[in-house]
Amino acid sequence: MKKKILVIQGPNINLIGERETSVYGSESIDVINKEIIDYAEKFNIKADIFQSNIEGELVTEIQKARKEYDGIIINAGAYTHYSIAIRDAIAAIKIPCIEVHFSNINAREEFRKISVIAPVCAGSIIGFGKFSYLLAVKGIAEFI
Amino acid sequence: MKKKILVIQGPNINLIGERETSVYGSESIDVINKEIIDYAEKFNIKADIFQSNIEGELVTEIQKARKEYDGIIINAGAYTHYSIAIRDAIAAIKIPCIEVHFSNINAREEFRKISVIAPVCAGSIIGFGKFSYLLAVKGIAEFI
Amino acid sequence: MKKKILVIQGPNINLIGERETSVYGSESIDVINKEIIDYAEKFNIKADIFQSNIEGELVTEIQKARKEYDGIIINAGAYTHYSIAIRDAIAAIKIPCIEVHFSNINAREEFRKISVIAPVCAGSIIGFGKFSYLLAVKGIAEFI
Amino acid sequence: MKKKILVIQGPNINLIGERETSVYGSESIDVINKEIIDYAEKFNIKADIFQSNIEGELVTEIQKARKEYDGIIINAGAYTHYSIAIRDAIAAIKIPCIEVHFSNINAREEFRKISVIAPVCAGSIIGFGKFSYLLAVKGIAEFI
Amino acid sequence: MKKKILVIQGPNINLIGERETSVYGSESIDVINKEIIDYAEKFNIKADIFQSNIEGELVTEIQKARKEYDGIIINAGAYTHYSIAIRDAIAAIKIPCIEVHFSNINAREEFRKISVIAPVCAGSIIGFGKFSYLLAVKGIAEFI
Amino acid sequence: MKKKILVIQGPNINLIGERETSVYGSESIDVINKEIIDYAEKFNIKADIFQSNIEGELVTEIQKARKEYDGIIINAGAYTHYSIAIRDAIAAIKIPCIEVHFSNINAREEFRKISVIAPVCAGSIIGFGKFSYLLAVKGIAEFI
Amino acid sequence: MKKKILVIQGPNINLIGERETSVYGSESIDVINKEIIDYAEKFNIKADIFQSNIEGELVTEIQKARKEYDGIIINAGAYTHYSIAIRDAIAAIKIPCIEVHFSNINAREEFRKISVIAPVCAGSIIGFGKFSYLLAVKGIAEFI
Amino acid sequence: MKKKILVIQGPNINLIGERETSVYGSESIDVINKEIIDYAEKFNIKADIFQSNIEGELVTEIQKARKEYDGIIINAGAYTHYSIAIRDAIAAIKIPCIEVHFSNINAREEFRKISVIAPVCAGSIIGFGKFSYLLAVKGIAEFI
Amino acid sequence: MKKKILVIQGPNINLIGERETSVYGSESIDVINKEIIDYAEKFNIKADIFQSNIEGELVTEIQKARKEYDGIIINAGAYTHYSIAIRDAIAAIKIPCIEVHFSNINAREEFRKISVIAPVCAGSIIGFGKFSYLLAVKGIAEFI
Amino acid sequence: MKKKILVIQGPNINLIGERETSVYGSESIDVINKEIIDYAEKFNIKADIFQSNIEGELVTEIQKARKEYDGIIINAGAYTHYSIAIRDAIAAIKIPCIEVHFSNINAREEFRKISVIAPVCAGSIIGFGKFSYLLAVKGIAEFI
Amino acid sequence: MKKKILVIQGPNINLIGERETSVYGSESIDVINKEIIDYAEKFNIKADIFQSNIEGELVTEIQKARKEYDGIIINAGAYTHYSIAIRDAIAAIKIPCIEVHFSNINAREEFRKISVIAPVCAGSIIGFGKFSYLLAVKGIAEFI
Amino acid sequence: MKKKILVIQGPNINLIGERETSVYGSESIDVINKEIIDYAEKFNIKADIFQSNIEGELVTEIQKARKEYDGIIINAGAYTHYSIAIRDAIAAIKIPCIEVHFSNINAREEFRKISVIAPVCAGSIIGFGKFSYLLAVKGIAEFI
Repeated sequence: MKKKILVIQGPNINLIGERETSVYGSESIDVINKEIIDYAEKFNIKADIFQSNIEGELVTEIQKARKEYDGIIINAGAYTHYSIAIRDAIAAIKIPCIEVHFSNINAREEFRKISVIAPVCAGSIIGFGKFSYLLAVKGIAEFI
Repeated sequence: MKKKILVIQGPNINLIGERETSVYGSESIDVINKEIIDYAEKFNIKADIFQSNIEGELVTEIQKARKEYDGIIINAGAYTHYSIAIRDAIAAIKIPCIEVHFSNINAREEFRKISVIAPVCAGSIIGFGKFSYLLAVKGIAEFI
Repeated sequence: MKKKILVIQGPNINLIGERETSVYGSESIDVINKEIIDYAEKFNIKADIFQSNIEGELVTEIQKARKEYDGIIINAGAYTHYSIAIRDAIAAIKIPCIEVHFSNINAREEFRKISVIAPVCAGSIIGFGKFSYLLAVKGIAEFI
Repeated sequence: MKKKILVIQGPNINLIGERETSVYGSESIDVINKEIIDYAEKFNIKADIFQSNIEGELVTEIQKARKEYDGIIINAGAYTHYSIAIRDAIAAIKIPCIEVHFSNINAREEFRKISVIAPVCAGSIIGFGKFSYLLAVKGIAEFI
Repeated sequence: MKKKILVIQGPNINLIGERETSVYGSESIDVINKEIIDYAEKFNIKADIFQSNIEGELVTEIQKARKEYDGIIINAGAYTHYSIAIRDAIAAIKIPCIEVHFSNINAREEFRKISVIAPVCAGSIIGFGKFSYLLAVKGIAEFI
Repeated sequence: MKKKILVIQGPNINLIGERETSVYGSESIDVINKEIIDYAEKFNIKADIFQSNIEGELVTEIQKARKEYDGIIINAGAYTHYSIAIRDAIAAIKIPCIEVHFSNINAREEFRKISVIAPVCAGSIIGFGKFSYLLAVKGIAEFI
Repeated sequence: MKKKILVIQGPNINLIGERETSVYGSESIDVINKEIIDYAEKFNIKADIFQSNIEGELVTEIQKARKEYDGIIINAGAYTHYSIAIRDAIAAIKIPCIEVHFSNINAREEFRKISVIAPVCAGSIIGFGKFSYLLAVKGIAEFI
Repeated sequence: MKKKILVIQGPNINLIGERETSVYGSESIDVINKEIIDYAEKFNIKADIFQSNIEGELVTEIQKARKEYDGIIINAGAYTHYSIAIRDAIAAIKIPCIEVHFSNINAREEFRKISVIAPVCAGSIIGFGKFSYLLAVKGIAEFI
Repeated sequence: MKKKILVIQGPNINLIGERETSVYGSESIDVINKEIIDYAEKFNIKADIFQSNIEGELVTEIQKARKEYDGIIINAGAYTHYSIAIRDAIAAIKIPCIEVHFSNINAREEFRKISVIAPVCAGSIIGFGKFSYLLAVKGIAEFI
Repeated sequence: MKKKILVIQGPNINLIGERETSVYGSESIDVINKEIIDYAEKFNIKADIFQSNIEGELVTEIQKARKEYDGIIINAGAYTHYSIAIRDAIAAIKIPCIEVHFSNINAREEFRKISVIAPVCAGSIIGFGKFSYLLAVKGIAEFI
Repeated sequence: MKKKILVIQGPNINLIGERETSVYGSESIDVINKEIIDYAEKFNIKADIFQSNIEGELVTEIQKARKEYDGIIINAGAYTHYSIAIRDAIAAIKIPCIEVHFSNINAREEFRKISVIAPVCAGSIIGFGKFSYLLAVKGIAEFI
Repeated sequence: MKKKILVIQGPNINLIGERETSVYGSESIDVINKEIIDYAEKFNIKADIFQSNIEGELVTEIQKARKEYDGIIINAGAYTHYSIAIRDAIAAIKIPCIEVHFSNINAREEFRKISVIAPVCAGSIIGFGKFSYLLAVKGIAEFI
């Protein structure tokens, strides 16, 4: 049976392609999301995309995913660094979750070196730009 | 006149009964909410339940409660540890607020030992599972 | 068979009713102790009271309680914040222990926000004045 | 051409005039908002007001402002102290943003001395009550 | 009666216009001081300027101001971050004091994020270049 | 009427005169106690001495002193640095308490620089050897 | 022309397959190294393996790689957390370096959450067991 | 002449054999004390045992030992981590003192990694269960 | 021969009697200085007074005192908490120096609990108002 | 069958007997090693000695020991305080490891109070000079 | 054309030769200053000396030097550790500045390990006694 | 007799001239080493060079130097910031050791501000590029 994954895009990710392009590149998030979906198809995985700037909506979506998806890829954006609510949501569900980041968060401000969700994720992929997502798709295929 | 209290359930509390049952027990949150309402009746108190995963909605509900309720019982879940917005909302209203937690948050990760809302609550009840709520109902009856 | 609990009153609790009455109320500790005993009777529980200002005597009493009582309610007073000896005593015994405080210790000095005994207690009840004890009696009835 | 600014009011600001009036004064937020709009008119600036208790909605509104407004005045309330999501939104847009606060946040609790959004704002105006906004209007007129 | 304010310029402010012009602009401090005086006149306020590199002279001047002026605007320069002596002087007098900074001190080195004088000032205006002073003049007009 | 003070000697003070004589001098504690009593007489004050190595006994003695004495001079020895129980006892009573130390505790290990009892004492006298006590007698004469 | 990468295995990685198999799996490091080499071939990349327990030898090998390889994949093992020497070596060369870890280092001891080499690597892949290396091969193919 | 040592057992050590047996073993403290005494005899040393849960009694006993014993072996239990009073007592006497612990305190909670008495002891033996005492007997024989 | 001491009054001490009178009392500094001089005469000591708000002038005066005085009493005011320059000056001279404070600095802001000069002073007298000076006069008489 | 242990001497231990003799004694390391070997024979244990200044060689030797020895005694010297690589090597093997130190590392610089290898060792023996090794031999005889 | 440098001597440097001679040597500062001037002549550099105990005067002198000198050698004494004002002055000018210290400040108290001026100086020379200045003269000759 | 010094070059110093040339300059390390040797000759000192990336080899070389050289100049590179092993080696020998750095390590990352070897070196010379070594040669000539 075809597997399903949910790709969760956190706050400000919707501006990718326009915002700080020297850091994030100039490809629009829509194009990138499309690439992720296409790439997942190669693994016979259906990938859905969900974006929200609201922490609690991300929590709700993670919760809902537990019944409908086989795995989650999440770029929690700024919430990465302080959302214990998202951490708890990930810990509360049984499907694997992969954390991704466009930029190398370890090479930026001190506060970006801390990920409060990393300890409850299965793995992390950081710094490969849009390829972070593609590698995560490939990686999650091993888990699900 | 019959008193009214609002019981506020924070993020991921809606999964209680399913999530990490060794920590939280396997009784569903709906059953527990029902018990709280019933128990409050014994004190001639009408208890309403509100749950949200969204920090700002909890803030809004606390604000609204100031005119409609005589007291609040809140399990702010993960927001307990960082939501100064919820803290400010509680501090901004005049009705008493009791903080409750299912599990003994002091026996878990270091970051769960800090409650940013505790200093503005009237009291805290921690670690009694669903009974935390029932004791809070009894306790708030003294304040209102 | 009738259950028995030990209520342990730590340092300076003996001055309650006289000391800082704006914080602790003006009811004397003897009156409060009496109320606790009476209230416990409603649950068919015999409550004994022990007070000492000496950390080691509290340790010894906790140790002794392990054979004679079904549970402990403790207000460790100032020792709450640094007595690892009391923590170890509580951890060493098998009967449940409930931590109580008259005042909201989280709303006072920074150093009062840390309870070194909380992690080994079954639960905590904070800020309800004398009702903290009564709620603890009710709460411990669930555990024993 | 007439310039436009967006005045963003964060969590609990909607209670101004009622909440902790010794700190914030007793003029209602609606009256203050009206004054801001009127004052901006003197600089031939159209000021719109947006209030939300939800962090993510503030993020979304900041994002939207980048195309519709020439500048932002923000009182992020409690989110000032921890919302990296709001910080990232401000950093992601090109129009100038001024941070304002009613009260002198440096004279209150320790945690209010840290503003995580200040480093990405053009400037900060703190402690002048409602005049903080008016000064910000005047100040932003220099930037836009 | 015409009000009087004292504008206190701290260490190295005398080099403004020549020093790190990318941060502070290239207008000389004399020109800026002149602008402040002129601007104050619009509010019927007489503004005097005092500059010193010596911490203790700033203390002395603040002390003297208590009898001769209705308010103080201070850019304490580097002393902002450690001069408890200046803080004490401001706290010791009854006239309001406004803290100003040319640059956004929150966007520079970590140690510049702490202002030890902010807690005893009436308000702070940061990051508007020379306009910080002008806004302060306007702001202090509300206090005096 | 003749005033009465209690001089409380904490842990290991009983070894003074024998222990680390290069720090504490070689006069025995009995001789010093005698000098204190004699010196107090000059102010028409009766001084009693109490020594214990047991924290809780010091607490108890402080408590008792509240009814029998007009003031306390305390050298809490090592407890100075961590006994919140003693701090609470001093705060709980209304008579003034002076903290004394033989040696300059600020010139020794880092942990000796913190006195948890100092904030609730009326004053502190540190580093004068046995004269610390005599000065304290003189000082307390001003308070009682 | 065929690209070349160097896969650097740090201290104790040579025990993989035998050591803490519940964490690292029971496949031997030789088998895993072989898989990496084979997988790289799919991208027409020649992968060489180097293992050493000696920090300085890892430094030397990184230095040498700058002339012979197009990229580096490094699992620095324990040195990840404190070897500034390795960090400096990576920073000193121009070819991209990917950091990998078998286990989720963020879910283990606190000190394993800090990677001193991450800030100078192009990206990090953490927690996928042996697949961390394979994903890194795929990822580095994008950079070289 | 036969040497004498005092073996001091701190708080909760009296429960050894019953308490947390997976950590401390199930041999009773009485049996262990007997073994210590017997083992000391092999070195022609008379070993006396003293146990107390009261910090100040341990202080007093250490003080008394200075005249009656040639050395001390101490397991200060929880007081190890905060009793500066015991530290001062050990520092005040001239006979050597060996610190022992049943369990490897470095492999437990963070706060157990700090021994405030270690700096004034001659040596420490940690983690050998009851053999810690026997090794200490052998070790102290070298010092006395 | 008559001894001489120098009483050094630091920043803002010149406002005593006018400034924060609830903390410092309403007696003017001139009156207090006079009392100190008179009191010293009882010990056949000539006391001179020096006040400055300038850290470096205090340093210079301390240096000069080494040849002209037998001891120093210093209230370094705010400089107490950060002036290593004053500390070094005191350490550089051979005559004894006593630190005094009007108020109990340990009962105020956290930063006032640290005295960087205390470690190089012979002793400290804190919290007795003007009597702090008088006790210091008496105390220094023992040293010189 | 005869048991075998490996005694690992870390960096700078080879200078013992010559280096800082007031701390380490003047007996040469060769003489001490010989004594260890002889003493082990009394327990029918063959002791081999390995010394290196190179962290990675210590790691390698620990790894090799897992197949050839029944236990390890290690004085990791300076690496004690930061070598997570050595820690990982010890944790990776199944034979018991005892940590020893000549001097009382807790009585020296702050950074020597932390042993990163202690948590994975079976036990620690500190401060007995060369006897630390002999006690360790005796102690390890209990484990193997 | 002959180059000119300014040698700035900070607080308490004027006592060199008399103060703590075991640390600083017994040669007077005048003799040392003379040697510096003579030594500079060998490089055809005119060296002027300026000494002050007043932080602000050092700031002023550094400012003035920007037009009259080609470089600065500064021993900021105690101000090294906290004078951001001096740091800002050095950063504000364009001529190179060399930091020197007589003693090895890294081998003294912890607070002396931090130099707030080092980051804005061209280089530092520490621990060579008076030769620190001479080496600095030689060093600055390379920069100017 | 001709003196001898050993110049120790730590990890990654061998890449100087090629690596980060904007920081370290583009002269090759071989050329610089040659210059050092030549310059030493002017002082009739024979300078030998030793470079290694391996911490333990640096330790060994420092040890060996104690018998063959009159002094050491060391650029410990990255090990400067954490190698207690190198620190101990330097402390263990009697010949003087000078610490040098090409770049101003105080103007770079926070972690480069700490030198663990500085406290045991005779002096430090920082930030003069290759001239740091030459100044060190001149400086050490004073010590040997």
